[in-house]
Amino acid sequence: MSDFPKHITVYEEGPREAFQSEPVVIQTADKIRLIEALSRTGVRHIQCTSFVDPRRVPGMADAAEVMAGLTRVEAVEYSALWMNTRGLQQALNVPYLKVDGKVRIYPSQTFLRQNMGRTPADHRAKNVEMIELCKELGVPVTQASVASAFGCNFQGDIELGDVLRLVAETFELFQEHGLRLEELSLADTMAWATPDAVTRYLGALRDAYPDLNLRLHLHDTRGMGLANAYAGLQMGVIKFDSSVGGLGGCPFANHKSAAGNICTEDFVHMCHELGINTGIDLEALIDAARFAAEIVGHPLSGRVTAAGTLSEVRRRKSAKAAGSW
Amino acid sequence: MSDFPKHITVYEEGPREAFQSEPVVIQTADKIRLIEALSRTGVRHIQCTSFVDPRRVPGMADAAEVMAGLTRVEAVEYSALWMNTRGLQQALNVPYLKVDGKVRIYPSQTFLRQNMGRTPADHRAKNVEMIELCKELGVPVTQASVASAFGCNFQGDIELGDVLRLVAETFELFQEHGLRLEELSLADTMAWATPDAVTRYLGALRDAYPDLNLRLHLHDTRGMGLANAYAGLQMGVIKFDSSVGGLGGCPFANHKSAAGNICTEDFVHMCHELGINTGIDLEALIDAARFAAEIVGHPLSGRVTAAGTLSEVRRRKSAKAAGSW
Repeated sequence: MSDFPKHITVYEEGPREAFQSEPVVIQTADKIRLIEALSRTGVRHIQCTSFVDPRRVPGMADAAEVMAGLTRVEAVEYSALWMNTRGLQQALNVPYLKVDGKVRIYPSQTFLRQNMGRTPADHRAKNVEMIELCKELGVPVTQASVASAFGCNFQGDIELGDVLRLVAETFELFQEHGLRLEELSLADTMAWATPDAVTRYLGALRDAYPDLNLRLHLHDTRGMGLANAYAGLQMGVIKFDSSVGGLGGCPFANHKSAAGNICTEDFVHMCHELGINTGIDLEALIDAARFAAEIVGHPLSGRVTAAGTLSEVRRRKSAKAAGSW
Repeated sequence: MSDFPKHITVYEEGPREAFQSEPVVIQTADKIRLIEALSRTGVRHIQCTSFVDPRRVPGMADAAEVMAGLTRVEAVEYSALWMNTRGLQQALNVPYLKVDGKVRIYPSQTFLRQNMGRTPADHRAKNVEMIELCKELGVPVTQASVASAFGCNFQGDIELGDVLRLVAETFELFQEHGLRLEELSLADTMAWATPDAVTRYLGALRDAYPDLNLRLHLHDTRGMGLANAYAGLQMGVIKFDSSVGGLGGCPFANHKSAAGNICTEDFVHMCHELGINTGIDLEALIDAARFAAEIVGHPLSGRVTAAGTLSEVRRRKSAKAAGSW
């Protein structure tokens, strides 16, 4: 076990995923209760909502109310997604939110062109605009993320070489603006990663940038989510995004496909069984997952929520053994 | 990719799992159709049914009819489970069945005692009885399997040292009867394995017995199934049991827990994406998984069946590109 990190950090994204992708209307009070339940599990980072155009994402119309209504836990860092100036200003209006600027890297030019109507040069200009806005508003910019890093439904397989080139350009972009790129997130947005690809990408990035913190954002759309996370752990990654209950898409409901992030409770259970500390109370997390299933109105994909954890089996066994004396 | 095996073999157990564990009555004709559909996927080994007491496993009452009604595919090896003399004789009554004797190893003494009412000595005697019966009937005995090799809900964690000791005793047992143990299967019957444990077990067994073929029988009850399979592939394992659709328990139905084997189509998809050949036509397998879901009357857990395969996305993309000329 000694090759694995001793402690990893979970960035919980379930609330934001659920509020934006679930087809049902979730009451503001329930949104608040879900975030509060997660706050009590030992999770230290919760992405609560998105400040985006409610005409495009109706589930986010009450983002400000959700943030205003929250009873917070001191140790938890709360964040929100934002994509433009208006969103950033809304995020800054919530005094306790952790607000960061993140440079977004799109190795899929087809996605950039077809879905965002941008050339690579346009996109670079947007990133420059975002950096300048953040500097003006005193918002730190230390992170970048690679969207669809391993493959893209619009472009197909993504070459590691292309990702490395874009990361090198991103380092230059940071430097040009007097900034330092401290953390790079690899997002398997459309679930093209394999554990082998995760290993190769992380190896190449670590070789090129030994001081760069690497983070993984994995989806379980094709069942390889935890295998990919395991490959990340083997490579020493200590930061993982995940969603309670695998929120963000459910293959068992009437969705066209399963888009969900890796499921926090299954991932945390795997970490604990590997002897890796997460600081999370797994039983409390499972309670939060059950509440999440209740408010979205369908079963979620968490396996340990359905089957129970191994530590629970061990506990029951010891209780029984003690009772038999 | 070069560290992985170039080709692995899937032992499909879905039919037997479904017929024994699904709460609905599956028509004999549908059982036959499922096995026939699987026969046309390129899968070379199908465990079709169990010859067991139909009072205990009612879904197996038509085992002989299923085997008699099957239109077979030449290249496929069909097998069935049997647990006692009567079952063995029923299996031998089906002329085309591959019938093998398998020594069963139970590192969980608690399970042996509580569920089978046997001491380790009783169990050894049963194995000797089975070996002698097989020799008498000309049935080859070359395999052994370790049940709940990584942990047991009745006993808790299992020590690798105990497994190694029992395997050594099994080698002796084979030798005493003039037999050779050629293949050892590690079964994670109750889903206690982690990828780390799989790596350690396989490493220790390979060190001790370099010529022994190792096989994995994994469950996905707590979501680690494919991560465990990946660890097996990393260790060069080339034989894997799995169930189409993850049959053998569904966490999303009203079952108490998710007991299913790893899902064949998700596992095969992972192998193909890792560049490992399985000889299986994944789209045909997905069709069989859809049919399986139909006859058991609830959605199954296959992720690629819900989301589609990456090769399908690649095909659609090329077709589109070709069409644009």
